[in-house]
Amino acid sequence: MTPTPHKVPGTRFTRFDDHPAAERNLYGEIKIFCGSGSQELGHEICHYLDLEPGRYERTQFSNENIFIRLEESVRGQDVYLIQSLTSPVSDNIMELLIMLDTLKRDSAARITAVIPYLSYARSDKKDQPRVPITARLIADMIQVAGADRYITIDLHSGQIQGFFSIPGDVLTAYFLLSDYIADLRIENLVVVTTDLGFAKRGRDYANRLNCPLAFIEKRRTDNAEQPKTLALIGEVRDKNVLLVDDEVLTGKSVENAIQLLQKNGARSFYVAFTHGILSGGGIERLARLPIKEIITTNTLPIPPEKRLPNMTVLSVAPLLSEVIIRAHEGRSVGALFDE
Amino acid sequence: MTPTPHKVPGTRFTRFDDHPAAERNLYGEIKIFCGSGSQELGHEICHYLDLEPGRYERTQFSNENIFIRLEESVRGQDVYLIQSLTSPVSDNIMELLIMLDTLKRDSAARITAVIPYLSYARSDKKDQPRVPITARLIADMIQVAGADRYITIDLHSGQIQGFFSIPGDVLTAYFLLSDYIADLRIENLVVVTTDLGFAKRGRDYANRLNCPLAFIEKRRTDNAEQPKTLALIGEVRDKNVLLVDDEVLTGKSVENAIQLLQKNGARSFYVAFTHGILSGGGIERLARLPIKEIITTNTLPIPPEKRLPNMTVLSVAPLLSEVIIRAHEGRSVGALFDE
Amino acid sequence: MTPTPHKVPGTRFTRFDDHPAAERNLYGEIKIFCGSGSQELGHEICHYLDLEPGRYERTQFSNENIFIRLEESVRGQDVYLIQSLTSPVSDNIMELLIMLDTLKRDSAARITAVIPYLSYARSDKKDQPRVPITARLIADMIQVAGADRYITIDLHSGQIQGFFSIPGDVLTAYFLLSDYIADLRIENLVVVTTDLGFAKRGRDYANRLNCPLAFIEKRRTDNAEQPKTLALIGEVRDKNVLLVDDEVLTGKSVENAIQLLQKNGARSFYVAFTHGILSGGGIERLARLPIKEIITTNTLPIPPEKRLPNMTVLSVAPLLSEVIIRAHEGRSVGALFDE
Amino acid sequence: MTPTPHKVPGTRFTRFDDHPAAERNLYGEIKIFCGSGSQELGHEICHYLDLEPGRYERTQFSNENIFIRLEESVRGQDVYLIQSLTSPVSDNIMELLIMLDTLKRDSAARITAVIPYLSYARSDKKDQPRVPITARLIADMIQVAGADRYITIDLHSGQIQGFFSIPGDVLTAYFLLSDYIADLRIENLVVVTTDLGFAKRGRDYANRLNCPLAFIEKRRTDNAEQPKTLALIGEVRDKNVLLVDDEVLTGKSVENAIQLLQKNGARSFYVAFTHGILSGGGIERLARLPIKEIITTNTLPIPPEKRLPNMTVLSVAPLLSEVIIRAHEGRSVGALFDE
Amino acid sequence: MTPTPHKVPGTRFTRFDDHPAAERNLYGEIKIFCGSGSQELGHEICHYLDLEPGRYERTQFSNENIFIRLEESVRGQDVYLIQSLTSPVSDNIMELLIMLDTLKRDSAARITAVIPYLSYARSDKKDQPRVPITARLIADMIQVAGADRYITIDLHSGQIQGFFSIPGDVLTAYFLLSDYIADLRIENLVVVTTDLGFAKRGRDYANRLNCPLAFIEKRRTDNAEQPKTLALIGEVRDKNVLLVDDEVLTGKSVENAIQLLQKNGARSFYVAFTHGILSGGGIERLARLPIKEIITTNTLPIPPEKRLPNMTVLSVAPLLSEVIIRAHEGRSVGALFDE
Amino acid sequence: MTPTPHKVPGTRFTRFDDHPAAERNLYGEIKIFCGSGSQELGHEICHYLDLEPGRYERTQFSNENIFIRLEESVRGQDVYLIQSLTSPVSDNIMELLIMLDTLKRDSAARITAVIPYLSYARSDKKDQPRVPITARLIADMIQVAGADRYITIDLHSGQIQGFFSIPGDVLTAYFLLSDYIADLRIENLVVVTTDLGFAKRGRDYANRLNCPLAFIEKRRTDNAEQPKTLALIGEVRDKNVLLVDDEVLTGKSVENAIQLLQKNGARSFYVAFTHGILSGGGIERLARLPIKEIITTNTLPIPPEKRLPNMTVLSVAPLLSEVIIRAHEGRSVGALFDE
Repeated sequence: MTPTPHKVPGTRFTRFDDHPAAERNLYGEIKIFCGSGSQELGHEICHYLDLEPGRYERTQFSNENIFIRLEESVRGQDVYLIQSLTSPVSDNIMELLIMLDTLKRDSAARITAVIPYLSYARSDKKDQPRVPITARLIADMIQVAGADRYITIDLHSGQIQGFFSIPGDVLTAYFLLSDYIADLRIENLVVVTTDLGFAKRGRDYANRLNCPLAFIEKRRTDNAEQPKTLALIGEVRDKNVLLVDDEVLTGKSVENAIQLLQKNGARSFYVAFTHGILSGGGIERLARLPIKEIITTNTLPIPPEKRLPNMTVLSVAPLLSEVIIRAHEGRSVGALFDE
Repeated sequence: MTPTPHKVPGTRFTRFDDHPAAERNLYGEIKIFCGSGSQELGHEICHYLDLEPGRYERTQFSNENIFIRLEESVRGQDVYLIQSLTSPVSDNIMELLIMLDTLKRDSAARITAVIPYLSYARSDKKDQPRVPITARLIADMIQVAGADRYITIDLHSGQIQGFFSIPGDVLTAYFLLSDYIADLRIENLVVVTTDLGFAKRGRDYANRLNCPLAFIEKRRTDNAEQPKTLALIGEVRDKNVLLVDDEVLTGKSVENAIQLLQKNGARSFYVAFTHGILSGGGIERLARLPIKEIITTNTLPIPPEKRLPNMTVLSVAPLLSEVIIRAHEGRSVGALFDE
Repeated sequence: MTPTPHKVPGTRFTRFDDHPAAERNLYGEIKIFCGSGSQELGHEICHYLDLEPGRYERTQFSNENIFIRLEESVRGQDVYLIQSLTSPVSDNIMELLIMLDTLKRDSAARITAVIPYLSYARSDKKDQPRVPITARLIADMIQVAGADRYITIDLHSGQIQGFFSIPGDVLTAYFLLSDYIADLRIENLVVVTTDLGFAKRGRDYANRLNCPLAFIEKRRTDNAEQPKTLALIGEVRDKNVLLVDDEVLTGKSVENAIQLLQKNGARSFYVAFTHGILSGGGIERLARLPIKEIITTNTLPIPPEKRLPNMTVLSVAPLLSEVIIRAHEGRSVGALFDE
Repeated sequence: MTPTPHKVPGTRFTRFDDHPAAERNLYGEIKIFCGSGSQELGHEICHYLDLEPGRYERTQFSNENIFIRLEESVRGQDVYLIQSLTSPVSDNIMELLIMLDTLKRDSAARITAVIPYLSYARSDKKDQPRVPITARLIADMIQVAGADRYITIDLHSGQIQGFFSIPGDVLTAYFLLSDYIADLRIENLVVVTTDLGFAKRGRDYANRLNCPLAFIEKRRTDNAEQPKTLALIGEVRDKNVLLVDDEVLTGKSVENAIQLLQKNGARSFYVAFTHGILSGGGIERLARLPIKEIITTNTLPIPPEKRLPNMTVLSVAPLLSEVIIRAHEGRSVGALFDE
Repeated sequence: MTPTPHKVPGTRFTRFDDHPAAERNLYGEIKIFCGSGSQELGHEICHYLDLEPGRYERTQFSNENIFIRLEESVRGQDVYLIQSLTSPVSDNIMELLIMLDTLKRDSAARITAVIPYLSYARSDKKDQPRVPITARLIADMIQVAGADRYITIDLHSGQIQGFFSIPGDVLTAYFLLSDYIADLRIENLVVVTTDLGFAKRGRDYANRLNCPLAFIEKRRTDNAEQPKTLALIGEVRDKNVLLVDDEVLTGKSVENAIQLLQKNGARSFYVAFTHGILSGGGIERLARLPIKEIITTNTLPIPPEKRLPNMTVLSVAPLLSEVIIRAHEGRSVGALFDE
Repeated sequence: MTPTPHKVPGTRFTRFDDHPAAERNLYGEIKIFCGSGSQELGHEICHYLDLEPGRYERTQFSNENIFIRLEESVRGQDVYLIQSLTSPVSDNIMELLIMLDTLKRDSAARITAVIPYLSYARSDKKDQPRVPITARLIADMIQVAGADRYITIDLHSGQIQGFFSIPGDVLTAYFLLSDYIADLRIENLVVVTTDLGFAKRGRDYANRLNCPLAFIEKRRTDNAEQPKTLALIGEVRDKNVLLVDDEVLTGKSVENAIQLLQKNGARSFYVAFTHGILSGGGIERLARLPIKEIITTNTLPIPPEKRLPNMTVLSVAPLLSEVIIRAHEGRSVGALFDE
């Protein structure tokens, strides 16, 4: 996706080279490293900012231990490590932490962990007894390993920001996605969320697209054969439906939603989400559903074989690049959030 | 509220003196202190557990400094400090922290902060740039001041548990409230939430009361005169409505909801919430609304003058007492959450 | 108080614009925020340094929760937050901490808490069993909330510096006050302290004003009716007395001292102190005492109605401004203390 | 391996039920959990101690996230989590940390991480620039996740103990292995180490077996074709060789050593090591080497298909069990190390 | 000093074996170790409590490194390490810290550092620019090394308690000393302090002995030849003087005070202080001064050759023993401070 | 030792003034302080870098307390404190820590502890039960006292790097020593280590000097009269021996080694080691041994009376200077380690 000359899509920014660079160099030279989980996205960011990616060697020995050796010094530099927590998840978490330790011990001036997709974000509270809060654990580990700051996109719940005591920039692909959808000029639209926990963000979509809102409600029953029942709350008859969520995994929620919405007379379906995990048969399930267009982003790598004909993948590289350059120069990124 | 002989209301417990006391004394003798924000509730707990409240002197000098002096030693004891963060909020936070420091420096064996209502819980994320996450700050301060554990009820968002690195028991008054409402046997009921952030808990109410669910959606507009518009999602015509929320402050959301629901043909109104803050004219507003019954709890003190004729205040003292005694004896409290 | 062209009153400094600015910009741009407890003083500092105060919005909701939103970004800046812990004390402590969290999470490069008057400083030790050390708690909270450094004036005891592990500048108004008094050229003077804990600082005053020293000794008795007796140690007959202390609250100590000194033949009275808390009827009590002149500072805001005709309020703004600019530029402020 | 009635093999202990149990119960009831990396060993320990293993549910979702739910409460208990960091290594590290968080948040009284094999232990120093010290990172993460103590066996370097600030028991299988070998009564024996970093432990074997010692020296050359050369230091002609190491991975070092030793006239070969990782074709390589007997332990699970006919796997379960029971009862385990 | 059957001298306690022992054993068995700086005092405490001192080996190699090896296990025990920071001070600090690390790593259940005299306590604030606060550093190091609690006597300033975040018991020998002096029934007594920083404690002595108070004031002058001048504040003519201080070093202050007091007509001299450092010729100086009786304690070892004929050394062993046994049993020691 | 114009001896660097200075000033002005343990070496470094050493006053009072007062401000500066932990060791450790506290509290921008010889490095693991890990304690104390980074030379074990969580540069004098020895062009050389723990570094020497390797093995026996026996492993007959070690203390190991090597027909002896502690009669012992040349460095001060005629002391000042200037300018020092 080529950025337009001035306005950066999905942001409220003008492109960084439209404004004179800040003169001071508060945090040292900028340096970007692309981890295994963000090879393509990381290189896109480097290209956008016209920087060479940092060179390092990554080895995984036969005992599965990951070993990192930087091939250039980061002493006194302002380092950004791009690493999305995609599959293989545990390996990518370990690589993130080991890389942070390496950068810290090589005396980087400042280290920012850029994590487009933060895994384990759904384990963010004890909603039943005797379970972990793994998202807090991940936040603690990132800090212990040496990150000074973090940047991420569309956390499953905003409260995860509070799991960090280091400062961070939590960005959203919502503007990117909703701008794109608004340009589709779909008539007679209704926004539907499949998860009540996403109700507020669904409201934001509906508000921006100036259309009504409806919900799918999941309810546990005592009936062992059909443990959950779905109900529709709101009106969808003869409407074009935009299903929105933060991430799509197996696609079962989408499938169930479309079946229910069809029964209730919905006309056509669009699906928008930030993080395309698409594991557990998710891509096959989406492929056979009657969806007009699937709109998502590249926070997680989506390889060619997963790119369905009706799928549009918007790039978050301009968004991340503009935030990184502003963080480096010590200028506001908050402008991003203002409307 | 007198507990029934065996089953403790709002819990899945039998009363603690129905089972033989655990023999070991892992954390020292139990001792309960009642802070300024929980005088009545604290004494109710002590009475339930047949314990004398810990004695201490609290002075507020003319320079507004709060001073605490324990009138008995807590050395080697398992101390529970009950302090709800009610008005005056800042003073009660300071008192909580000062009390924790006092208990720590007097060499208590273990200190549990029992905070029936945790203030600032709505400041739990940065949903706009350049704002604080005060709930995390409060969690940090409670740990720094010396708490080893915490107990609280119905956090605004469950994720706040992850703001603490010490273990804690986050209880809910949902069972207490929904059991009571179920006993009312209201026919033709629909559960409505006024805040989309409370949608999931609303679903739980509807599920338990075996009735449908609807939502009020608030939407910001560009119209300066009427900055927010409300929409109803779901069906309420000719139904009796149960409005549910975690806390009620000024009552404006309730008022707006009832107006909208009346326009949509709702028949009658019940309101249920855990935390009755009822500040900023809240009690007056509730008083003049056509509500059949207001059901709430005493996590925050509700003085006689705020107790409306149609208000039922259920006590969380049995719930807290049973959890405290189980925590003291090192027995499971998770049973509470199982259905 | 207008600063003289070269020498800054109460300091050993020449005015900052008399020397060429340091060229490097180690900590980012300077930015000053004025908290609720230091509105007037903060603006005086901004005016002295020719800087615009940082813009922010402060809301206190009906549930008493304080909410802060910065109206400009502080990313990469060297921020000074001026906040005296004046009445309402608990609210101002909470505001200080919430503001620090906000600044930290907006990625300020360095945050200095400038606290002209640190409340709770008298709770700095356990001088009886089972009491808190609240001053240490305050220091811990300031660090946890995000301050990198602190600046304060005339701590009740110098040891409180050791409660902080972050570096700080503890300034004194002693030079400001004693320079002013020396200029009064009072003959036949004796310095008297009303609190033996202030004996050493009293000696410094006497030394600088080249006059003798005397003490008021408070002694607890077994007599319940008159629990304390006062004794004068030293000579005051036919002398003009300068009573000195770090802070004046209710003025009862001053009243008792003057009564005792009158009985012992003292001729006239001057009173000097840094922090004018003047709560609990303090201003009325001072008003009716036979005091020639009260000399104090504006570390705490003294509103017009508290400014007695015989009261001189010296401004600490030049002192704080000069220290802030030196801290920002990375130049020595220790010169302040050398004589 | 059945323990003899009194003396526990590989320890200096008598069996725990030969001595009366300590009466006090300092840390709560004992509870043992067996992680995925130590299912068999963990159950062997439970059987030895006549305890039921703790029940929990482990799920790995299609997004690879590991989820733990304890099926019984650990509140107030003295918990031992047995988890060897075997393949899949990153998953097992994550499971270890998530499990610790779960146990901590369920208010266990004390948590001991029992890690028979600590992965990443070879990444324990920066022996070249710009590399991590992952073993320190692992130690930090174990502490952050909630462990109060740790128990492990034969760390690659003893200094890794100093990476932990929590106390721990670092055991050794050296007594177990060398006792077994001594019982073989091999004549004309020489101990050889293949890694100079293991020279001291090799000396201990030689000392205990009362035989001479020799070394294989690896040297990097400037010759790109044959980057390393091997040299033998010491005498092996006509001797039976015992090759000793802490762990065996691909077996290449063993292979190279045997080739060199054969050239130097060695007669036969025994191989002893604690940790059988045996990845990267290790088992196939060992299988085709002329080794009389391979002696190792079950710190890592060795499945049936990896158990060669000439391999003896000694169990560390009695050793770990005896240490766990002593740690639980607060009695000395140091006796283990005394000779 | 033999304790009387019931009342323990210098405390408000009855002897520990006059009351039935607490039954529970919250912190494990009690164990006392005597460090190099408190050999005699430590053994006196063990004898008082009828306990065998813990056995350990202390080696100082030719490279001056101190090495500790415990000769018995402390696993699961409640350990008290008695170590006064006497000469050689740096060695004794290192020994204290190394011993704490040893005890922690041997899994003691709780560790209390008993430090009868805390060195460096006068470095407790920055009273000039660019100096350390070494007392805070010492407190931090004691915590980092592994102490859970501390016990000490007569800190130079009470605020040093706030340098610790772990709880502690700060005792005083003031009752011990003043009881003894009261028994001397000296007529016509006046209490004099030589340091204005000790003024408040001097007032306590005067209050208890029911006599007046006077001060020696030290003032720096511009006169290089006589850099300090002394002034007497208060009346001493024809009176018997009790000079009081917390510690005596070189005795120069005492010497100067006596000279000034003699000029002002004082009749005779008693000197009382808690800590007898008596370095830099202190003992010789005291020996040649006209002092009737020197009253001090054994918080620091006073070897026979330093015991002047007119010196009475009161033992703090009963005081420390009674506090240790109460801390061990989890009973109040605060009673000590109440009058 | 005069550095050659371009290549710095013992490094892979060209001299710092051969390359243009980096323009930015990331960490403030550079300032070097020379502690008591590195007076001569520190001044040599200052001379090399053409800097004035930082001025400070060090006092040791008669109570042995060390007191530091900086005579110039370090606010906003990049400070390097050179302090080798030489005799008196405990005093020099205390001085290091107190100095760090002083620098931190004077608001230095960054503090690097340069410790050419780190004492207590041999206490780096528990190789027997109930002993400390003092090296970790030292690392913790250095961090707690305020160091942001550290630089040291030839740690006893590389793992001690992992005891620090702050970044550091661990340098080696191995290149310096081996370059010098290579220039001696000794024929028929064999490298021998006296400690198996130094085997790997011995291999590096042998590799670089292109000669064979042999070992002295120490073995404990059951014979009380001769508790240790020595064995030679490898060939030394008619060879010139280079004995290598990291440090030499009493010289007993060297003496024993030479006796054994002579029996085995070795011809002549060279001894090389980094750290010359030479305590406990070490210098006398070395003096009477038949050693051709002793090659060591000045990481520890070697006073003239200890400089034997056959001793060459190479200076590490160029190495440390070049690393300091690179650390200051934020350029790579890793180049040092590459060959």
